[in-house]
Amino acid sequence: MTAFVRNQWYVAAHAHEVGRELLGRTVLGEPILLYRTEDGRAVAMSDRCVHRRFPLSEKPSRLDGDRVVCGYHGFTYGTDGGCVSVPGQQRIPRTARLKTYPVIEQDAFVWVWIGDREPGDTLPPRAPWLDSPDHTVVRGMEPIDGDYGLLVDNLMDLSHETYLHGGYIGTPEVAETPITTEVDDKAGIVYVSRHMDDAECPPFYAESTGIEGRITRWQDIEYHAPGLYLLHSRIAPVGAPGPNADGTDPHAFHVEVVYGITPSTERTTYDFWAVARDFALEDQQVSDFLWENNRTVVLQDVVALNVLQKALDTEKAGYQELSINIDTGGLAARRILARLAAEGVEQVGAAAR
Amino acid sequence: MTAFVRNQWYVAAHAHEVGRELLGRTVLGEPILLYRTEDGRAVAMSDRCVHRRFPLSEKPSRLDGDRVVCGYHGFTYGTDGGCVSVPGQQRIPRTARLKTYPVIEQDAFVWVWIGDREPGDTLPPRAPWLDSPDHTVVRGMEPIDGDYGLLVDNLMDLSHETYLHGGYIGTPEVAETPITTEVDDKAGIVYVSRHMDDAECPPFYAESTGIEGRITRWQDIEYHAPGLYLLHSRIAPVGAPGPNADGTDPHAFHVEVVYGITPSTERTTYDFWAVARDFALEDQQVSDFLWENNRTVVLQDVVALNVLQKALDTEKAGYQELSINIDTGGLAARRILARLAAEGVEQVGAAAR
Amino acid sequence: MTAFVRNQWYVAAHAHEVGRELLGRTVLGEPILLYRTEDGRAVAMSDRCVHRRFPLSEKPSRLDGDRVVCGYHGFTYGTDGGCVSVPGQQRIPRTARLKTYPVIEQDAFVWVWIGDREPGDTLPPRAPWLDSPDHTVVRGMEPIDGDYGLLVDNLMDLSHETYLHGGYIGTPEVAETPITTEVDDKAGIVYVSRHMDDAECPPFYAESTGIEGRITRWQDIEYHAPGLYLLHSRIAPVGAPGPNADGTDPHAFHVEVVYGITPSTERTTYDFWAVARDFALEDQQVSDFLWENNRTVVLQDVVALNVLQKALDTEKAGYQELSINIDTGGLAARRILARLAAEGVEQVGAAAR
Repeated sequence: MTAFVRNQWYVAAHAHEVGRELLGRTVLGEPILLYRTEDGRAVAMSDRCVHRRFPLSEKPSRLDGDRVVCGYHGFTYGTDGGCVSVPGQQRIPRTARLKTYPVIEQDAFVWVWIGDREPGDTLPPRAPWLDSPDHTVVRGMEPIDGDYGLLVDNLMDLSHETYLHGGYIGTPEVAETPITTEVDDKAGIVYVSRHMDDAECPPFYAESTGIEGRITRWQDIEYHAPGLYLLHSRIAPVGAPGPNADGTDPHAFHVEVVYGITPSTERTTYDFWAVARDFALEDQQVSDFLWENNRTVVLQDVVALNVLQKALDTEKAGYQELSINIDTGGLAARRILARLAAEGVEQVGAAAR
Repeated sequence: MTAFVRNQWYVAAHAHEVGRELLGRTVLGEPILLYRTEDGRAVAMSDRCVHRRFPLSEKPSRLDGDRVVCGYHGFTYGTDGGCVSVPGQQRIPRTARLKTYPVIEQDAFVWVWIGDREPGDTLPPRAPWLDSPDHTVVRGMEPIDGDYGLLVDNLMDLSHETYLHGGYIGTPEVAETPITTEVDDKAGIVYVSRHMDDAECPPFYAESTGIEGRITRWQDIEYHAPGLYLLHSRIAPVGAPGPNADGTDPHAFHVEVVYGITPSTERTTYDFWAVARDFALEDQQVSDFLWENNRTVVLQDVVALNVLQKALDTEKAGYQELSINIDTGGLAARRILARLAAEGVEQVGAAAR
Repeated sequence: MTAFVRNQWYVAAHAHEVGRELLGRTVLGEPILLYRTEDGRAVAMSDRCVHRRFPLSEKPSRLDGDRVVCGYHGFTYGTDGGCVSVPGQQRIPRTARLKTYPVIEQDAFVWVWIGDREPGDTLPPRAPWLDSPDHTVVRGMEPIDGDYGLLVDNLMDLSHETYLHGGYIGTPEVAETPITTEVDDKAGIVYVSRHMDDAECPPFYAESTGIEGRITRWQDIEYHAPGLYLLHSRIAPVGAPGPNADGTDPHAFHVEVVYGITPSTERTTYDFWAVARDFALEDQQVSDFLWENNRTVVLQDVVALNVLQKALDTEKAGYQELSINIDTGGLAARRILARLAAEGVEQVGAAAR
């Protein structure tokens, strides 16, 4: 399996998923309870009652105002994780306290910090299109029964669109066109670009943009290890002018495809996805189409990765892969994840000294 | 997991479950075949044919008079476990013999002895209300995907009624009222009492007794480790006279709630339950109501304990619980179980010397 | 579990199962892709893409002429396992090659060689009735969730027909009649014979042959370890003349029941079955009856062996069986399998030196 990277921010939920119902998510193996207080603040704490370890996200556990009441014996907790009531006695044991998690709500994601030290000034990477008046967004989450490294591999090498997503977002040119890869090791970012000058327009873009002929199609990936993946997708009719020197680009359609990649357990992953567009902003039909279409694409990935994980589970130790040019980005991502995971372990060691 | 306690009687079935159909039950990990002979005697023997280990409780295995015929190759056994017929030859190997189990039918339970020595004079603890003309009984069995220790914990601490069984048997007073606990270490019995002088009457008792106002409600638990749990429940309108000095108690309603707690495997448990009442003896509607209602309550426990077991399965070794006053009885039960389990092991060792 | 025997031919499929759809089968733990080329030749190769181990038998992987295109990133392979195309570049890495498996199509079975050396002159054992104009055949395959040794045991001891297959092929005489067993250790063949001179005719034979009274019924088993089992079944009315000296036998009905026993994983087995008859060759109703009836019998075995495997999974190490005369053939088969398995390991060792 791909090692977990601790001391990082992870997407625990889309903002709209966190509300006045108790939500349980397991992030890097840690069971986390999420809910929103009456004044709208997202909070995160351990999803296990201190008494007998009952999951606080499971019914009949419930919210009482901003407090969580365990559904088994009624241990009750405030938003700071402190226990405020136990059955049969007035005295609350001092150690009756749930671990809380630092939470940041940013770009319509609820991020939690998983680590052994405090985040300090560290902030999650940005995906501003997801919470911008200049974009319209569709989004969802699909769980994967597989190592999160399989999803990183998948997204870093979009040549698979041609085969796994043919008829949706794949065309022959995606697999045929070579990529360029840049790695910012220090920042932990991998950039992979594929610029197709004259390509078939797949249904995903033909139906949403209305373009009828061939297109120039740019795929510019930014992977912020470990948990955020951005695909800047630029679509324009062949022959249309390129971007202006000032960065404006009025002759093209832009879609920002964003993935929050969150390891849940060693063999399960949350695949948070969002598609933001800068055109047809008010067109519900386009929104419906993109939601349905991208969800189908994500589910094609989910099915393939579940199949792949099962296949890998039967491999003997030391089985071999064969990597080629298209894997440059994925391999760079694996190296960065391995380094970050090792650093996380060292930080734990340092904190213990 | 909670250690198994050997050299003890366990409920293997309600008496009505054992008949002329072959019944398989696994008790403390041992597969046991149960059936009733033509003259009505319950017998128990190993549920594995000596030949190729086929389960004798599985079809097409069948009874032929009082003999069991294996459904695979026809090895046939008498009630003493001895093989009386094999295919293709007249000679029966001398070692062709199933292990039999001591059986006692008592209080409408079929008890089996699981141990390395004979029970001698040891008898199962009593629950006489279950087979008494002065009581009417409803009963059932629900399997739990969890360690039997979780069910012991659950039943020893009834404060959970308020939260898990609200609307059925729980009211605020159960969780609020302190308990008194007594432990008879030598006999292996834990007593937990909670006397509520002025409490809301939950639907379970309101509908069955017809009481309309508030009640005095006594819960007197007797846990006979490892496998029998008795809850003496006394319900009376507030202000009604208490029991007489001679033990009679004509102004109250009495319900005896009995649980046979039988470990099946390390992670599965049989939850045999029965509810005996000393009122409305002929009223089928009350019987139907109590059966339905108590089964719902038991299933609420089953769901919660299955959830809890799954949560505990993901905990790291050495995870912590926090215990308070209400847990006094449960902790005492755990101590007795640990002692009995250790004694069982010592007895095995002694027997081997 | 029963040890795998390497350096042997195994039935991987009925011939009709291998066509222009990609078929995945796991044989002795090795994932194998099977398909037929455009000119009709069956080929077998590793079912894992060299790139990221995606199963080539899983959609959207597909055939393009005689080439296999991986459904994940489009790695494309010829029938010799060599990779002929990868995405994003012209150069094919030299090591991009799938392991291929020797294949022989014989007697309407597709056999694959599982081993560490080449088969050389070794050929699979024969079952010529399955592909003969003098016979009509019905066939199928049922997977078993059990060790293949359980299926060998099952088929070597037909006394179980009386109990497990009563009402189909079992009658009391099968279990009652002693067997004779011969073992050709060198060739790895076990012969078990049971000749019933005057027996009830079970529905399987009564309905297919039209015989109305009692029969002589011969069961002559030839087990070619590890993977082919033949049951020569001879049925004739009681009193009919026996076979002629020249081997012809015009007064009897002959049914050749053939099993390909193929270990899939340590706990799963393919049960390939076929029933060939030398009578009523054109009678579709008899074919339908025999297909339905034999499939039911096979499924009775499957259910029993699945139950048995689950029971064995809970046994402690060193549990005991008890064997009698009817087990002579099965025990001989186990000895031969153990010897062949050990030889397979030695051959691996020898090859490595």
